[in-house]
Amino acid sequence: MTRIDDVARLAGVSTATVSRALRGLPTVSAATRQRVLAAAEKLEYAVSPSASRLAGGRTGTVAVVAPRLTRWFFATVVEAIEEFLHEAGYDLLLYNLGGREQVRQRVLRTANLHKRADAIMLVATPLGPADLTALAQLDLPGITISSGGDVPGWPCVRIDDVAAARTATRHLLDLGHRRIAHISGDPDDELAFTTHLDRRRGYREALRAAGVVPDPSLDVESTFSLAGGARATAELLARGEPPTAIFASCDEMAMGALSALRDAGLRVPQDVSVIGIDDHDLAGVLGLSTIAQPAAEQGRLAARLLLDPLGAYHGEPYPGPAPAPPTDADGTTRPVILPTRLVVRESTAPPRAH
Amino acid sequence: MTRIDDVARLAGVSTATVSRALRGLPTVSAATRQRVLAAAEKLEYAVSPSASRLAGGRTGTVAVVAPRLTRWFFATVVEAIEEFLHEAGYDLLLYNLGGREQVRQRVLRTANLHKRADAIMLVATPLGPADLTALAQLDLPGITISSGGDVPGWPCVRIDDVAAARTATRHLLDLGHRRIAHISGDPDDELAFTTHLDRRRGYREALRAAGVVPDPSLDVESTFSLAGGARATAELLARGEPPTAIFASCDEMAMGALSALRDAGLRVPQDVSVIGIDDHDLAGVLGLSTIAQPAAEQGRLAARLLLDPLGAYHGEPYPGPAPAPPTDADGTTRPVILPTRLVVRESTAPPRAH
Repeated sequence: MTRIDDVARLAGVSTATVSRALRGLPTVSAATRQRVLAAAEKLEYAVSPSASRLAGGRTGTVAVVAPRLTRWFFATVVEAIEEFLHEAGYDLLLYNLGGREQVRQRVLRTANLHKRADAIMLVATPLGPADLTALAQLDLPGITISSGGDVPGWPCVRIDDVAAARTATRHLLDLGHRRIAHISGDPDDELAFTTHLDRRRGYREALRAAGVVPDPSLDVESTFSLAGGARATAELLARGEPPTAIFASCDEMAMGALSALRDAGLRVPQDVSVIGIDDHDLAGVLGLSTIAQPAAEQGRLAARLLLDPLGAYHGEPYPGPAPAPPTDADGTTRPVILPTRLVVRESTAPPRAH
Repeated sequence: MTRIDDVARLAGVSTATVSRALRGLPTVSAATRQRVLAAAEKLEYAVSPSASRLAGGRTGTVAVVAPRLTRWFFATVVEAIEEFLHEAGYDLLLYNLGGREQVRQRVLRTANLHKRADAIMLVATPLGPADLTALAQLDLPGITISSGGDVPGWPCVRIDDVAAARTATRHLLDLGHRRIAHISGDPDDELAFTTHLDRRRGYREALRAAGVVPDPSLDVESTFSLAGGARATAELLARGEPPTAIFASCDEMAMGALSALRDAGLRVPQDVSVIGIDDHDLAGVLGLSTIAQPAAEQGRLAARLLLDPLGAYHGEPYPGPAPAPPTDADGTTRPVILPTRLVVRESTAPPRAH
């Protein structure tokens, strides 16, 4: 069995540096990290429990930072993380940002997280330069889930938001729709992450690929919530001739659209088709077509990569398969992208002939 | 201003005992606790920050134990608790039971919670005798939310489940229904709390008060989830003549019923009326009639009572009103009951004439 000494020798660094590089600590340079990962991969080095990412930790606790728990995606991710960490003997310290900028600052910059937790998991947490500096000073291993900000040295688990939005829009185009509206995220939302920007890009790309010029009057910004979707739909309808289809940036927004369309006396899908992204637990009950994303899997996989970044290459300390975080030439970790799929239900159909 | 010495003198105990009694620690007898609370109330004693319930704590952390975060009620309660604790400077350590009995045992009996947290909040957590013994040995202040088990000396915040179920059933009776089915909780569910027993009691009481004999063939047990409600409804329909109305023990079950009825080709409310309990975020979109319960308020109020059990009597350290936990003659704390209300939407209507 390969030992950490062998990896250190091949990479030309100390065993301490190997350990720090594998734990993703920011005090290791990108070039060195890349050398260590390449050596570990070449030697099929299996991380032992005592050499795992969190081996240097003292608290037995992982801090998880997430926006509102009352949104399906975040609750599902946090529940999956908690289950995995718990099995592995770790406690979960929860920071629920709830749209409060001052809380984000307190948690990321002044919470003394290094005394309270051995590692950090950021779920869809937007990061400014000051946050990144503070995180680097904490010198803790971590991982990000869903779009937000990338942290140097930390792996990231997410879906391909551009592709998911492209698939949703193409489904509507394939049905014959041309007046396709989009409900996007609010750039002024304190919680604004980058997800909605990628999803809008996918929407526009799919339209253009089909020869449809994106119409700004069919593109409304709102918050990632039921109320946000309802508000945006009411605004769309107030602008004049309704679209024949709506692609909402998430299922909760799409459900708000269903509600607002019903209030306006419009039938789904006869008058307007609606599609979202998520496959929320209640999408089936509502007959909502959507792009399903594996939310629990993203949480589980992230927890697993956090505990053992090489578990996917060699050794199998936890059940189930886990793709390894690929490494770029400059030593930065590329995101692990999980697949999405189109789920067609009753809310999408061809437009009526006029 | 009244000092802790005055309370101690009036109650005939030491100041340390006053502090311990106000923090709800189990090592104070029920009789003594009652004397202290009576003295504190009489003297309008305002608990100072340094004398609050958690003043003896060292971790700055509150442990919150809850079942599945992916259910609306629990996510809403935990989010509200987290927000309140965070404002007050406390971190939240999350234990998500997820239906796993062994996790419950590990958390409640062996997790060394007294080293990790200053207090415990139990959300709908069933407690056996061994759990109660373990909790008493931890000697921490705590509070319970929703039905589960009562812990001696700890306040409890919840709704009146019997009354909520009575109101739901009476609404269906008032519309003219007589064949009213009930979807209840599963007694074999590892997470089985007592909520569903109280709700079934309310259902039966309302039927009997209207001269309707409860029909066991219209009473199905299932799990508190969307899938549980769908399964129970399919079972009800397989038993023969469908009911004209269904009262489900929670909104997620009721939504599962909507889905199963649609799959069976039955229309809501024309063929079958459906009502739940909760007022889930999506109840409006689905047009679901329900008994609304204040979930976030239960979380906020519990966090507040935990931090300062007398804040409601005197002084107002936190915004908004909070009812005080009433104390029985024997010194035990009676539950704080928050109000529920009937919300009539499209899913309930009079039965069709046959």
